[in-house]
Amino acid sequence: MTDLTRRTMIAASVFAASALALPRGSRAAAPQAKTQGPGVYRYKLGDFELTALYDGTWYLPIDDKFIRNASGARVDKALAKAFLPLHVLPITITALLVHTGTKLVLIDTGSAGQIVDSAGFMNANMTAAGIAPADIDVILISHFHPDHIDGIKTKDGDKVFPNAEIFVPEPEWTFWMDDGNQSRATGSVLKYFRNARRIFRDIAKEVHRFKPGVELLPGIISLPAYGHTPGHTAFALQSRTEHLLVMSDTVRNPYLFVRHPDWQPIFDMDGPQAVKTRRHMLDRAAADRMWVEAYHFPFPACGHIVKAGTGYELLPSMWQPL
Amino acid sequence: MTDLTRRTMIAASVFAASALALPRGSRAAAPQAKTQGPGVYRYKLGDFELTALYDGTWYLPIDDKFIRNASGARVDKALAKAFLPLHVLPITITALLVHTGTKLVLIDTGSAGQIVDSAGFMNANMTAAGIAPADIDVILISHFHPDHIDGIKTKDGDKVFPNAEIFVPEPEWTFWMDDGNQSRATGSVLKYFRNARRIFRDIAKEVHRFKPGVELLPGIISLPAYGHTPGHTAFALQSRTEHLLVMSDTVRNPYLFVRHPDWQPIFDMDGPQAVKTRRHMLDRAAADRMWVEAYHFPFPACGHIVKAGTGYELLPSMWQPL
Repeated sequence: MTDLTRRTMIAASVFAASALALPRGSRAAAPQAKTQGPGVYRYKLGDFELTALYDGTWYLPIDDKFIRNASGARVDKALAKAFLPLHVLPITITALLVHTGTKLVLIDTGSAGQIVDSAGFMNANMTAAGIAPADIDVILISHFHPDHIDGIKTKDGDKVFPNAEIFVPEPEWTFWMDDGNQSRATGSVLKYFRNARRIFRDIAKEVHRFKPGVELLPGIISLPAYGHTPGHTAFALQSRTEHLLVMSDTVRNPYLFVRHPDWQPIFDMDGPQAVKTRRHMLDRAAADRMWVEAYHFPFPACGHIVKAGTGYELLPSMWQPL
Repeated sequence: MTDLTRRTMIAASVFAASALALPRGSRAAAPQAKTQGPGVYRYKLGDFELTALYDGTWYLPIDDKFIRNASGARVDKALAKAFLPLHVLPITITALLVHTGTKLVLIDTGSAGQIVDSAGFMNANMTAAGIAPADIDVILISHFHPDHIDGIKTKDGDKVFPNAEIFVPEPEWTFWMDDGNQSRATGSVLKYFRNARRIFRDIAKEVHRFKPGVELLPGIISLPAYGHTPGHTAFALQSRTEHLLVMSDTVRNPYLFVRHPDWQPIFDMDGPQAVKTRRHMLDRAAADRMWVEAYHFPFPACGHIVKAGTGYELLPSMWQPL
């Protein structure tokens, strides 16, 4: 067969006789769309209907200090191995909608376009999925980083989901809403304190605070997964005999943090504790062959974890009919 | 943190106090959708705009004879390792639409619902992508298996893409349209002969036959990739400095045929030749870090190939904004 090097591919293009060039008009009937298709993927978990809603991808420039315990060169090597551009972390954001049959539950709320222009499509994708903001009964929050809570409010401070009851981890609330903690914060962490107040202060009385470990709704159990933030919470979903472990930000981009679970990005407020939680969760997921989901996995953000070398690999679930 | 075994997850559900069970109505505002979202994914290749159009998944029951040179037990082990059900091959079908800027080109045409009910969504997804059948300027066919050509015609024999010029590999035409070859065929292969006649006989004069190796349109080069069928053809796409290798059916489900390139499924008419073509193409793709696409890869069906053990692995491309 034809030799397949890139050089040959280029040469073939330049020199091959275009014997079959078409005689008809030189413009295609339809223009290029120049926009992405809807990011909506549904899957079943027992009687639950789950919908992955793509919010976008935040391309974060990273430097040598991004991972506290790995050099920029090692991180670039991991990016190259995954065929990703160097010095940039692609942070995919996918919110999870859970229709339990009796409640429509949104786990984390997207960035609402308040962080970067390449993210903020969750609400448009929710519309594409046939769901109106007023349909959401319950919002569960994993932790108070902006890309998880910004979707609760518009830039002007209006509530986006007028009928939703909001549940947040109690230790997360205690940490971020404490004025003493805020007074000691600097840089981006200080921004997160201010943002938490922007989102929650005027609706504080309506926000339910839960102790991670409790069952929040039948088949939706909160799981303490501290380290990324002081109250960071994962969720276990179960319906009939099926289970899904919603890992929230315990792991993020799989090519960095599933493959290298010991790496401590500056995002993890307590690096060693985050590693301990991450290793524990990945280890259990692999040992028990659990179905897993994570907010920053590539859309549609679900799959399985397998042990590989000193770390793990994510096997993404295959896109299937519902 | 909470112990995460499945047993614990179940126990937590059964015994945990549902302290936060919500007081409001017991019906969600919106019903479950009970249908999959649109399978439309766009990506850029230089000036080309590519659209992956999901057609569905054909769940093919397989037995001990499905792979000529691997036992059913080995195949089941590979399926289990990929977290897939045993004794069933999930055959994802994704057609590729290439907007070159001046031509709208469809590479292979989906199953048109003429094979199984769980496939045949390509045209609905094309509509979701804003493309009408009459917009298609060119159809390129990789080979004459039904899941690649059935979309050309309705069950009643009408042309689905009224304005499309159809290009097929000359050796594929010669083989399948030969009455002597048909007279020697049995079983499913005989069905494929009859199906090729159903699709092509009355439009034979309109069908352009090309010799694999030629450039079909600027930036779209055909590549002989024989073995799966006598005239099976792959395509190299290139625009500006970017390249995509469209592998057609040289490989199919990655967990079986990328990981085990030597396996000879009964689909491959010339098993040893198909293995030679597959190994050559996977080896070049891995060595040159080519971007690749294949008709039966999990939607959206594009990624990169890396060497792993005695075979290869597919690293799916991350879903991104356009």
